[in-house]
Parts: sequence; structure tokens; C-alpha cells
Amino acid sequence: MPRYRLDIEYDGAAYAGWQRQAGQPSVQAAVEQAVLGFSGEAATLKGAGRTDAGVHAFGQVAHLDLARDWPADTVRDAVNAHLRQAGETVTILAASVAAGDFDARFSASRRHYLYRILNRRAPPALERGRAWHVAPPLDAAAMHAAAQVLVGLHDFTTFRSVQCQSKSPVKTLDRLDVTRDGEMIEIRASARSFLHNQVRSMVGTLKRVGEGAWSAADVRAALDARDRAACGPVAPPDGLYLVRVDYER
Amino acid sequence: MPRYRLDIEYDGAAYAGWQRQAGQPSVQAAVEQAVLGFSGEAATLKGAGRTDAGVHAFGQVAHLDLARDWPADTVRDAVNAHLRQAGETVTILAASVAAGDFDARFSASRRHYLYRILNRRAPPALERGRAWHVAPPLDAAAMHAAAQVLVGLHDFTTFRSVQCQSKSPVKTLDRLDVTRDGEMIEIRASARSFLHNQVRSMVGTLKRVGEGAWSAADVRAALDARDRAACGPVAPPDGLYLVRVDYER
Repeated sequence: MPRYRLDIEYDGAAYAGWQRQAGQPSVQAAVEQAVLGFSGEAATLKGAGRTDAGVHAFGQVAHLDLARDWPADTVRDAVNAHLRQAGETVTILAASVAAGDFDARFSASRRHYLYRILNRRAPPALERGRAWHVAPPLDAAAMHAAAQVLVGLHDFTTFRSVQCQSKSPVKTLDRLDVTRDGEMIEIRASARSFLHNQVRSMVGTLKRVGEGAWSAADVRAALDARDRAACGPVAPPDGLYLVRVDYER
Repeated sequence: MPRYRLDIEYDGAAYAGWQRQAGQPSVQAAVEQAVLGFSGEAATLKGAGRTDAGVHAFGQVAHLDLARDWPADTVRDAVNAHLRQAGETVTILAASVAAGDFDARFSASRRHYLYRILNRRAPPALERGRAWHVAPPLDAAAMHAAAQVLVGLHDFTTFRSVQCQSKSPVKTLDRLDVTRDGEMIEIRASARSFLHNQVRSMVGTLKRVGEGAWSAADVRAALDARDRAACGPVAPPDGLYLVRVDYER
């Protein structure tokens, strides 16, 4: 029973999130349906990151087991043909045969997210649903400086959704960089794993810094509070992208 | 009666093109409707480039006259509010008071277009409707070299739609650059003016070069033929963007 690794890109706007949910469209269900369509097998897909409703991916990774031994390229092309036919905004970038113990979620050594803020007066046309529109000018350099307070090993209770199911709020944030490219502010976050809503919670807090309402010291105080109520507003899902997942091999 | 210049961004997917057409959604009609909504005036908008159905713009320019003397920023924000309310994928990037003889179309000294080809095996998810998907690997360097055949003063009859209303097929193409950035091939074209379907016709021909079917000499022969039948296939509108319009002051 071969195991396959799938690298997946999607526009999350049309989905209630990665994870299958009764009565709602999900990325997982869309791919599982396409697998069923081409192979006749009702396989279960397991993803590296359970992205929320409206969150996008350039490089989600998932694994599944099939009874029949298909060439990996056939899996990719056949699943894509079925996704396309169903009108899904999901595509399989690559499929490969994985080791039997490969687990897209638990074997992951690092996850990389991108958050995009469109920082200009005019609302987005081409970037609608693909970035957070913030009209007042943001100071990206101040946001970057304040972001460094969050890098490292911390108790991230302040930046964790109350629905988070992770056993511990203590995580190591490897990178939180804020850069500006014209009207677009890009925030890049890397860690072995993230808490639920952690990136969007950190971005919402950094936006407060960018507009001058908060200082880096305020961010530190919010982190030290270990209290969800100390968090800034959670940034909308539109601007968030799961960019890449690393595996040690 | 003040004249206003509007700089406009749009996702062209939902429109039958820039130009107003009976019974079909157009970018022009969407903006005129928004102007009517905020000012009560039935103004006519004149655009620099009459983009086709599905073609996008980062920087279309248009002008219109209003009876009442509104501050330009009020025009921008009020039109945007009405566009948003109507669910249009159009946004006014900037509004400014223009000279009484400013004509968005006839005062333009140069137009800049971008064409994007997503060159990878997997169909697009995030770039759906925003790029031309071409699966076989394209040689961007060969495309760029062949493109230089088209730069300069030429009779572009081969690369002109049969519906083109321009008086003369003779135009000066200032720039036609082909570059690759990972999976994306970007083609940048600049000229004082273009014939109808000229950019998409040139891109379709360059794609033939990229896949190895045509040489630069074949492109030259097609140009010299001055015959629409000598043109390669016309590239789809999804990948085309009106990027900027220059005006001499």
C-alpha cells in the first residue's frame, strides 16, 4: 500500500478551511473527492497545516495511502484533472512516493508562513481576498523591530486562539521578518509549529505597532501577560499563505 | 466644469472589457455608475486603453468632466465607496484635477503592458485567471532574443486583430522584454500605442519560439509577411495587464 506525498497550492477563499467539515467545502474534501474520482479509493488525506477558512497555500503538504501502486505523476495529473473538472481552486504541484512512516504533519521540521498587508488608501481590486487592506500608512521598520521581541522560545498564550488544541503554548518562533515592497508589507514567519491563529494574532499586534499605537515594549508586555485578552485584533485570513513545509531526511 | 484624471486598477475577469457595451458589464460602465451614485451626474469616462474582456489593469488612466467642483480626494473615496458597495473588482487608485485639454487617450505618450505566463506542469490555483498556463517548458532567453525582431518601427499587420480600427498598422514598439522569475515568465511591452490584440498576438508567437517550434527568423518572416494568417495563436486575455500610461507634461 504505497504512501504518497502531495504538494498543494490553493486559493482558500472558497473553503471553510483545510480540514474536512460536515456540510462545508474544504480543501481536504476537495482533494479526497478528486482522488476518489480517479482511483475509486476513499483515501484520507492528512495535511501538515490545518489552515483556517480563507487562508491560502503556495505549498501545503499532505500524505495519503492508496491500495493500488500508481506512478506518482499519474496521481498528480489525474487528481488535477478531477479538481479542475469540479471547479476547485486547488492544484497538486507535485506528487511523490513517500516512505511508509512519512507523516505530513508529524514529520514536519519547519513551517513557513507569509502574511501580506496591502498598505494604501485605495481598496484592493487585483489583491481582493489575497491581502489585508490597511489604509493608514504603516511603519514597516518599527513593525520589524517589534517583531524581534517575539522571536525565540516563549509562552505564546497571548497569541493563541481560545480554540487552540495544542498541548502546550510554549513554542520556538524562528523568524518573524517584516519588509515593505512598495504598497505591500510582507511578514514572514517560520517555526517548527504554530499555535492556532498565532500568525494572524502576531500580525494584528504588529499592525498596532505599525500605526504607532503600540511600541515594542507594549508587544513585550502583551507576550509576558500570557493572556489572550492582551492580544491585538486578529488579522483577517485573506492575507495569510502557508508557503512551505520542511522535512528532515 | 473641472476635468478629473482617474488612475484605475481592475481585475478584468468579470467584465466584457473596458468599453461600455449594451447589456454587458464593463469597467467603464462600473465607474460611470459609481460616479452617478455619488454625484448624481451622468458623466462619460474616456480611458487610455480599451482593454478586452478578461484583461486586467494595474494603472488604467481615464478622464471625466463633472459640473460640480469636488475635491479630487473626495471623488476617489466616494467612487471607491460606490464601487465597493456594488461588488465591482475595480478601484480608483488616485484622482486628480487635470487640465481642461487633458485627454486620457490622445494625450498619452506611452503605454506599458505586462503579460504573465505561468510555465509549470500543474494548473494554476492562486494564479487562475491572472496568467496564461503553459505546461511545456519554455525557453525565455530564446523568446527574448526573438522578441527583439519586433522592436522598432514596423508594419504590424500580422499582429493586428481583423477588428482593429487603427488607421495605420505602422507603429513603433519601444520595448519587448521577456524574463523568467521562477515558474513565471514576464513579457513587458511599451509603445506610444498598440494595435488591437497586438500584445496578445506577439505573445502567442513568442510562445511558439519558447517551445522550440519557431526561430527568431520565423518571427521575422511572420512580421515581413504583413498577413494576419502568418501570426501564431493569440494568447488568452487572462495574462495581460495594462500597467501604466505615461503623459508628457
